Amino acid sequence: MSLLVTGIGELVTNDPALGHGPLGLLTDAAVVVADGVVAWTGPATAAPDADARIDLGGRAVVPGFVDSHAHLVFAGDRAQEFEARMSGARYDGGGIGTTVAATRMASDEELRGRLRGLVAEMRRQGTTTVEVKSGYGLTVADEVRSLRLAAEVTAETTFLGAHVVPDEYRGRSDEYVDLVTGPMLAACTPHARWVDVFCEPGSAHAFDGDQARAVLEAGRAAGLGLRVHANQLGNGPGVRLAVELGAASADHCTHLGAADVDALAGGTTVATLLPGVEFSTRSPYPDARRLLDAGVPVALATDCNPGSCFTSSMAFCIALAVREMRMTPAEAVWAATAGGAAALRRTDVGHLAPGARADLAVLDAPSYRHLAYRPGVPLVRALELPG
Amino acid sequence: MSLLVTGIGELVTNDPALGHGPLGLLTDAAVVVADGVVAWTGPATAAPDADARIDLGGRAVVPGFVDSHAHLVFAGDRAQEFEARMSGARYDGGGIGTTVAATRMASDEELRGRLRGLVAEMRRQGTTTVEVKSGYGLTVADEVRSLRLAAEVTAETTFLGAHVVPDEYRGRSDEYVDLVTGPMLAACTPHARWVDVFCEPGSAHAFDGDQARAVLEAGRAAGLGLRVHANQLGNGPGVRLAVELGAASADHCTHLGAADVDALAGGTTVATLLPGVEFSTRSPYPDARRLLDAGVPVALATDCNPGSCFTSSMAFCIALAVREMRMTPAEAVWAATAGGAAALRRTDVGHLAPGARADLAVLDAPSYRHLAYRPGVPLVRALELPG
Ligand SMILES: [Zn+2]
Ligand SMILES: [Zn+2]
Repeated sequence: MSLLVTGIGELVTNDPALGHGPLGLLTDAAVVVADGVVAWTGPATAAPDADARIDLGGRAVVPGFVDSHAHLVFAGDRAQEFEARMSGARYDGGGIGTTVAATRMASDEELRGRLRGLVAEMRRQGTTTVEVKSGYGLTVADEVRSLRLAAEVTAETTFLGAHVVPDEYRGRSDEYVDLVTGPMLAACTPHARWVDVFCEPGSAHAFDGDQARAVLEAGRAAGLGLRVHANQLGNGPGVRLAVELGAASADHCTHLGAADVDALAGGTTVATLLPGVEFSTRSPYPDARRLLDAGVPVALATDCNPGSCFTSSMAFCIALAVREMRMTPAEAVWAATAGGAAALRRTDVGHLAPGARADLAVLDAPSYRHLAYRPGVPLVRALELPG
Repeated sequence: MSLLVTGIGELVTNDPALGHGPLGLLTDAAVVVADGVVAWTGPATAAPDADARIDLGGRAVVPGFVDSHAHLVFAGDRAQEFEARMSGARYDGGGIGTTVAATRMASDEELRGRLRGLVAEMRRQGTTTVEVKSGYGLTVADEVRSLRLAAEVTAETTFLGAHVVPDEYRGRSDEYVDLVTGPMLAACTPHARWVDVFCEPGSAHAFDGDQARAVLEAGRAAGLGLRVHANQLGNGPGVRLAVELGAASADHCTHLGAADVDALAGGTTVATLLPGVEFSTRSPYPDARRLLDAGVPVALATDCNPGSCFTSSMAFCIALAVREMRMTPAEAVWAATAGGAAALRRTDVGHLAPGARADLAVLDAPSYRHLAYRPGVPLVRALELPG
């Protein structure tokens, strides 16, 4: 069955061949969907016939958001830690231990309920592709369980056994890295597409450059794609390591030196910015303009997690990117859609050219600009296709 | 018909006699509603019987938000001006003229449709009381029309003929003040509860202290309550004038001197902070802590308008208040509920003690803290009462 979606006042295709500018912008547009795939995109007046029709009454449509960085398998919350931090306590990642303890104690049903609730919450806010990391289990069994649950809701599953050094390995992080790169990786690989590591030398909770390299190389040898939590708290080796190893994405990029920007500009690694984290930890924002002006591909993602940033809203990240990182609304929307797709090395999502997955996000507004112009307002939802 | 709302995991009553702390916090609570009014509030185990029952499954409930500052009668939008400003153009209020022109040209139906759409959008985000200002008409007929339409949706209507000096009076602002305080006020008073003025000496678009005093005194003589747009762009006389004349609220309070804080602390005027404006104009935020620490009652409101801040989300304002103004989550929630009620001199809203209007806002979360902890996420909606 084919469906004609018409009455699209403004359509972001992200295909410069289909419309104006980098967003491939069309006005008074239509999209034909067949079998869950975009079959045709163009001006409404030229639209072909279809079996059914929806009229959006002039609303804007963007590609469904691609949230390429989220931690959704966990139990408990940390609202009180958040409250304390907002009163002045500094964020050093140490609170993760409370989530690890709660996650290990939780039943599959509890974890699945929370995970599915958050994915549904994201979808109601226009997110149609989400990456989900493990990383609150930190035992072989609990990491496998996290990834098995994540795989129920997304193809973009990431093994993050190297999220934090668990309390029982405190002071013995090399031993923990042996576990992660050995039996844990072996058990997790069947359930994961990606491997990730929190590279942050100087933090007792995280992993230094050598440890991060060991994790990434082991993951790559096991056939996983690479992603890195890099340069969040300081100017460490994470970003350059990500580029050197050909990682799909270096995430956070809050503290960058010239060598980092040069490496990103010369490599194939996307810089994924997570401004919700800086909002929720009251930290300085990454320098997005420096990256964009150097030609680095930039993605935006939520980092949705109970500790450093519990937003699930890509629209909120777009508003922050414009307000706090001086991205233009167009750059921010591109980063939240095509940028996220690039960070996941996906060509079937993040744009609306023929052949793409029919992930349409509908705005209750006439233009994509309203995602930044109307901060905090729930303007966008994923279009549910009939049948 | 009476209704028992039970399964309230956490209830903010804003009545210290009913629960813990300034928020009057109860856990495992219930509320009985009869004839649209709170009939009983207390622990669920002690709840009386009622004709019907809703179980909220552990969700948190707060009083419906009281948004005491909004400009919702207008046509057009200014997304492109927003985009230009985010690229570096400075906000000086001059863009209002485009909204005035569009509003004058619009039909009643167009204005009514936009107004009702925004009020519904607010309600879907937990706002149950909203003040609506005129101020984009700036002729006798257009101001009367704006207030007549506003009165269709709220009792809190504010005559803001002195919003900006209209283009046709440029350089003749005293003549415009004569119009505002004369025939315009006379025609508008039957449709308004409040009078307001944009007091900003040094702006060609706004009104100086003497002009603001003339507007407020004329309004008071006509029987209207007083509110003032004060000290947004500079440290002017607006706040002290508001306190001197016993205004219910001084709004913005972005630039305050010690005399302003002292005046507020010694008077009966609420300081209403509008952090969405600072977010959307990339301006420094007001010093909320200084006001709170001086004992000044503080309200939060959206200032929802197409120019300087087009958010309708009180939850977003709470998140900003915590992140950017170092209010605690409890202070911010109080300011968005009881604070807004105080700024409108209302005793029937902003709290959930017996006798209050049964305006319950339900969170899809266990605690009011989540309004700040989960920024940008649409967590809160007004509870629709059956019948
Ligand atoms: Zn992360
Ligand atoms: Zn205003």
